[in-house]
Order: sequence, then C-alpha cells, then structure tokens
Amino acid sequence: MTKEHDATLAATLNALREAIGDDAVRTGDAIGERSMTDYTRHAPMRPAALLLPRTTQEVARAMMICNDAHQSVVPQGGMTGLAGGAVPRATDIAIALDRMSGVEDIDVASATMSVLAGTTLQVAQDAAAQAGFELTLDLGARGSCQIGGNLATNAGGNRVIQSGTARDQVLGLEAVLATGAVLTSMSRVIKNNTGYDLKHLFIGSEGTLGIITRAVLKLHPQRASRHTALVALDGYDAAVNLLRSLARRFGNDIGAFEIMWPDFFDFGVSLTTEARSPFEHAHPLYALIEHASFDARDDGERFASALGDALDSRAIRDAVIAQSVADARALWAIRECTAEFPSRLDPVNFDVSLSIGEIGRFVDQCRAALDKKWPGNRSYFFGHIGDSNLHVTVDGHSVPGVEHHAIYAFVYAMLGPLNGSVSAEHGVGLLKREFLPISRSPEELAAMRAIKHALDPNGILNPGKLL
Amino acid sequence: MTKEHDATLAATLNALREAIGDDAVRTGDAIGERSMTDYTRHAPMRPAALLLPRTTQEVARAMMICNDAHQSVVPQGGMTGLAGGAVPRATDIAIALDRMSGVEDIDVASATMSVLAGTTLQVAQDAAAQAGFELTLDLGARGSCQIGGNLATNAGGNRVIQSGTARDQVLGLEAVLATGAVLTSMSRVIKNNTGYDLKHLFIGSEGTLGIITRAVLKLHPQRASRHTALVALDGYDAAVNLLRSLARRFGNDIGAFEIMWPDFFDFGVSLTTEARSPFEHAHPLYALIEHASFDARDDGERFASALGDALDSRAIRDAVIAQSVADARALWAIRECTAEFPSRLDPVNFDVSLSIGEIGRFVDQCRAALDKKWPGNRSYFFGHIGDSNLHVTVDGHSVPGVEHHAIYAFVYAMLGPLNGSVSAEHGVGLLKREFLPISRSPEELAAMRAIKHALDPNGILNPGKLL
Repeated sequence: MTKEHDATLAATLNALREAIGDDAVRTGDAIGERSMTDYTRHAPMRPAALLLPRTTQEVARAMMICNDAHQSVVPQGGMTGLAGGAVPRATDIAIALDRMSGVEDIDVASATMSVLAGTTLQVAQDAAAQAGFELTLDLGARGSCQIGGNLATNAGGNRVIQSGTARDQVLGLEAVLATGAVLTSMSRVIKNNTGYDLKHLFIGSEGTLGIITRAVLKLHPQRASRHTALVALDGYDAAVNLLRSLARRFGNDIGAFEIMWPDFFDFGVSLTTEARSPFEHAHPLYALIEHASFDARDDGERFASALGDALDSRAIRDAVIAQSVADARALWAIRECTAEFPSRLDPVNFDVSLSIGEIGRFVDQCRAALDKKWPGNRSYFFGHIGDSNLHVTVDGHSVPGVEHHAIYAFVYAMLGPLNGSVSAEHGVGLLKREFLPISRSPEELAAMRAIKHALDPNGILNPGKLL
Repeated sequence: MTKEHDATLAATLNALREAIGDDAVRTGDAIGERSMTDYTRHAPMRPAALLLPRTTQEVARAMMICNDAHQSVVPQGGMTGLAGGAVPRATDIAIALDRMSGVEDIDVASATMSVLAGTTLQVAQDAAAQAGFELTLDLGARGSCQIGGNLATNAGGNRVIQSGTARDQVLGLEAVLATGAVLTSMSRVIKNNTGYDLKHLFIGSEGTLGIITRAVLKLHPQRASRHTALVALDGYDAAVNLLRSLARRFGNDIGAFEIMWPDFFDFGVSLTTEARSPFEHAHPLYALIEHASFDARDDGERFASALGDALDSRAIRDAVIAQSVADARALWAIRECTAEFPSRLDPVNFDVSLSIGEIGRFVDQCRAALDKKWPGNRSYFFGHIGDSNLHVTVDGHSVPGVEHHAIYAFVYAMLGPLNGSVSAEHGVGLLKREFLPISRSPEELAAMRAIKHALDPNGILNPGKLL
C-alpha cells in the first residue's frame, strides 16, 4: 500500500464514520477472525475496515462514499462459502449485514416471508415453521449462513430436487448498487411481467453487482410424512430409470435421490456406529431416496410398494426401508460422512454438474483417468443426480507431492467437452475463476462484463471474484 | 421517411440479401398481414422489411448488418401477444423465426427438450406428450404462439399455480444480441452457478435485449388423473383460506384455482348451453378448482373428501364435483366465457397482480370506484388468485364516450399504493409503457436502461417497447 492509498483510505474511513457512525466502522484488531476468510480457509486476510450498517439507507450511504473514492468493497454473509467469494484482500473494505437481521413479516395469505439479508437461514426456517410453513432452502451451514449470502451465491443444498435452488424461493428482492442506488423490488406476487427481472441478476452474482439487503421468500406447506430407503442398483442407467419411474409415480414428492458410488459408500459405512453395510453383499451403486408427502396419513405403503415393484421387475437389486426415525438417521449417516472429510482427508472437492444422462459415463471416465494419472489415488464419487449435480472428492493425502491445483485442472479439463459446469452450487468466487471459461463462452463472459460495467462502472464490488 | 433514410435502408436491405439470401428478405406486398400487428389489433403497420432467417448464424449476420446501420429491428413470434410488443413501425425491420422451427431432441434421462424458437407451443407440447412427458406451459394461443415469443414475454397461462410461468420451464437458452454476438447457453443442468444467469435477463424482456433462437425446456411427468369442482364461497377471505388448506393437503397437486366474482360468473353461465348455474342459489364468490395427481388409481375420493370436510366446517357454502369429462368441460365453460369477450363486449382488459391477501379488497375498492365514476358500467372480475393474478374487464359499450385510455389510467392509478403490478402475464409492450412507473421505481427503471444500453448500445432492438 502506498502512502497515497493510505491517505485516501483514511479520508474514506472518516467519511464513512460520519455517515454511518463510529461504531459501524471497525478497523484493525476490532475486526474478528470471521471476516478474514470463509469455509475454504483460503488465505485469511484482515480487510482495511469492516462496516456494520443498520439499515438499507446506511448501506446506500456507505456505497456512495466508497464509489466516489473508487474503494473496493467485499460483501460478507455468514462466511460459510466454499469458493472464496467473500474473502477480502488487505485493501478491501468488508461490509457485513449482521445488524440487519430478522424476519420482517410472514404473509399467510400469499405464503411469503419478508426477511432482512443478515438473518441466518435457521432463524428464517424456524419462523416459517412456527407459522405452519416450510422454507425449503436448507443446507448444512444453516446455523451460520445468512439469507443474503444464500441468495448472492444461489445456494443449493438438500431440497433442490423437490423445491429448486435459492433462486427459486425468491419473489422479491432489495439490493444496493455500487453507486448507492437502492433497488427495492419487494414483490410478493408470483406473476410480474413489468420489464427485466432484476432479482435474477443479483441472485448468484456473488456480490459483484449489488448488496442484497432484503428479500421476499416463498413459503411452502409442510410435508407431513417422510419415508427413507436405501436401494442397491446395477449401475448408473438403472439409477436414472428408477429416478424417472419414481417421478412418474410420485411427482416431486421424491425429496432426495442421492447416488453413492461404492468407494464413497464403503467409506461412509466405515464411519457409522455399526460400521457395516445394511446390505449383505456389495453392489455397483447405491441410492438414498426420500419420499415426502403432504398426506399425514401416508404410512409409506405406496412408496414401499413402488420399491417392491422395482424389485420384482429387477429394476433394483435390493432395498432397505427405514422403519423408524432412528433407521432413517442411520441410513442418512452413510451419506453424511462428508462432514468427516475435512478431518479424515485432505479433500480436493469438486461440485460439478452435467446432463443427468452423462454423469455415469463421466464418473467412469474420470475415475479411469485419475487412476492412470495418479495410481493409488483415493477418490470418492457421490451426487444429487436428480439435480444433475455430481460431487467428487480426491484425497490429497493419497497423491503426495501433487498440488491441489493440478488435480483441479485435470478434472475440470474433462468437463469441457461434455458442456459440464465447474460449479453446480458452490459458486465461482476466487477458487474457480480461472476455470470459468470451461463452462462459459467468450460471448457469455463478454455479456457478463458488459452488465457488470453497466451496474458497477468503477468496478468496486468484490473485484477479483467471479469475473 | 427522408430520402437519406430511404438510401440507407436500401443499402441495408442489399447487405441483408447478400448475407442471408434474397428469399429471406421480404418487402412490400410480400409481407403478409400477420407481421403488421398482434392480437390487440393495435395500429397495423407494414414494416420496412421482414427477415426470415434459417439459422442462428443468419440471425447473427442480419443483426450485425442492422446494428452497423443503426437500423431498428422488431422480433416477432406468433403475433398472439396482448401488449403490442411485436407491432412494427413503418421504419422497422421485422424478424420472424418461422423457418427455425422444430424440436431438436428430447433427453429422457434429464427430462428436457431442446427446441428452436420458431416452434409453435402446440408442436412442442405434442412432442413432449409423445415421449411420455408434459410440457407444462399452456395457453389459449398454443396453436399459433411460438416458443421464442412465449419466453420473450414470460408467458403465464393455465398451469402457473402448479408449474410456474414460462421462465420456470427454461434450463438453457440461446440468444443473439443486437451486435450479432451469439450467446449459447443451452444447458440441460438444473444447478449451474457459473456467473450471471443470463437466460433470466432475456426471458420477459420482450425482444429488447436479444433475439431468442433456441431453448432447453424442462419436461414434467404426466399427471395421470384430474378432478374438477366448482365451489361456492362466502367471500374472498374464505377463498384464500380454502386455497391454503388445499395446498397443505395436496401440495401442488392443485392444478387450478380460478376465482370468479358474481358478475363474471353470471355472464359465463348465461353463455353456456344450459344457461343456468349449477347452484340453486346465488353466492358471493365462486372457485373453479382442479386436482391433478400422478397417481393413475386416484379416483378423486381424497379431493371429494377434502371438499366434504370444508362443507362440514362451513369453510365453503356449496360444491359441485364433476362426475365425468363432460361435467368438467361444462364447469370450465363458465370460466372460459372470456373467449366470447371480443365478440360480445368492447373489452378493456386488465391483467394485474397483487399480493394474494389484497386482491379481495382491491376488487371491492375498484368496483366501487368504477361505479362512482361511471355509473352503469359493466365490469367483470376473475383471476388465477393462486398466482396472485387478477383480471378485470370493463365493457367499453357500457360507458359510451369514454376513451379506453381513461379507463386504463383510472384503474392502474388504484394499483400504485398497493405495490401492484400493471402486468401479471401479458407484458408491457407498447400498451402499458406509460404505466410502467406505477409498478417500477425510478431506480429500477434506470438499472433496466443501463442494462439495455450495455447489451444494445445503438438501441436497435424493439425501440419504443417496454422501456
């Protein structure tokens, strides 16, 4: 940092203190660890300042000052991101909406909730539940992540097959542009064809186009009964056929369809309390399936009967149906072994998406290529295939001396010819920026840059991320 | 038109003929009536030329030539729009994609369809049905309207309560910008967080940002059984309570929830074959409700039982359940009397949306205000209230000497304080452009203009529409 930059920064901070108050502008040690990096633990860095505005108007005033000073700003939510999208540089000013938290109202007639962006997902979920609804957005970090971050990254999570991603839950949005202009589109209506749908531009833009300050979210009726089964399959094509046949029979009452390849499944089983498979034999592929219906009197008989039919016609090899909540938890524990990845592995994580029909071939091809390139590598394949989303984790410990970056580059390069996406749900942030051209054409990137420049002409919002 | 303009136009047309062929550039009488106006019959006008490209590359070449010449271009689909969005001026060049028609493929594994923009909705629907799926987008003009126009206007229609608007059916899109740049984002994946979601920008932008040339659409499983009922209600609050209670019990198996106020209902009944109400008495409000489930063995007993419970608890006043397809058609005929509006009335149509809880009050207030302003006016209120969408039709014959424009201005002015939308599904086009500021703030309009300028710097795409 030059002396000139120091002087400009000092003037900016003074203007900010005057505009939004001394206690809303933190510097130095007053900025806690949380503001320095996200769940990736990527290059922690103390930003030049941390702003803690209380209102949308304060966000707007702060942005106006930063824009005039060409001062870069990094919007931060719960810092649970997995792509480095909210990690600051030493010269950035971070802005966190922790003080803009809470559910503003729940409108039962329109089944909507108006919520401030700094509200944690769990607080919003609980408020919805208390009003007799379900906020269907759900992910592991629910206790820490914030609605603003969920929307800025278009979070995916556990219920996408049934209710879509974060984007699909949004009816209205308020965002502050880099210039300080406030776009208030807090619509509660389902149909609104009055010009460009600006909310979709901010959702998933990772803080590069505006700061989301409030949102109107859709609420869904609560599903009254849930039944879980673990199914053994001949292979990937059988999994897709089962998915389509269950969709024909149950529509979107199928609430989870999680595919686990044997390496992943065996690792998951080894970490459960009983440490043995619910099946007597090993199988080529496993699916964890949830049926969730609105009918409180649904005893799971229809779901069991569908699986029975599948067994009779050899569409599946075997099935275990949970008979209790404890049973269901034990089955889910296998899939949720991913929580142990950070402590047991040196995880190199991929979150890619591909056309559903191509995922099986990609897994075979990817595993063969990894084995050829790095014999002895340990890699785990699993995915929300109903959402076209595949996760791959390569254990860095199994390929000593190999840089993570080399593994990323190797796997992403295989995606390009298949029109795959380098980020299904985690976003691009810092970590995948260099790989973005694998999934986006030069024309698409040029259009994104034109839009970025139109809304943030000085380029102050989250520079170096995404684009 | 000046001589200078004539000379420039002649040069542009020559360049176009050279680029995409003589037979793809029509002028004068070779341009049929269809290209002159849409379903509004608004100011028919023969455009300076009509382009009929065969490929995306030809669209791109044509746009590059028009952009260089600063020549305005009006994209046209099936010309079934209800807002004048595709009506040309004499100085515009129209572009129609009739030759870019057909379903490219249906991908059963990912339950998607790739379709050219000039394909009629019905052709796409039929192809989906033949593959065992349902394309849930549906509207009256299905035989003429084209997928490109459906997406450019974010069409709503008959199935929104169950499956969303046109926007919600799109996974991938290809569009040609004003500059001729081709944005090909023909993704088949459900999750894709790699930068700005450009497709949502083109959907609903009414041809002002780009020309949609292809799309990947979601396909849904076919619903196997449908049951229809007509319900009599105490009033609007009872309707909302019934909507919520049916949603809790059946989720989105509720496929229609059409509310008719008595004036509309009585008019509808008077036009049916029997010309008498299915109910013995008159009631304050009527709802036509459809239950559509994936279960082929669903005999309607659960739906009937839900309505029986509602009757027992006096949540509803009466109910008629269709016992046959003919019965169901007879009930739908009342609601579909709107097809007779153009021949029986001088219809001044409103297609507004409001928060679901506020629609009832708005109807009361609007009717009282209309009666006070124009005693003796005949007005009809009905709506897809599950979609927050209200339609109002004022019969111009009942208020002789009153300009349509005065009626539009009077009703739209009442929407503003309620954060209503002047267009739920029909779009803005030419007809509602002056009323757009009722639903959009100056900041939102400025952001839209900035985006428009970023993607279409010469302002050649559909000038005078929307913004």
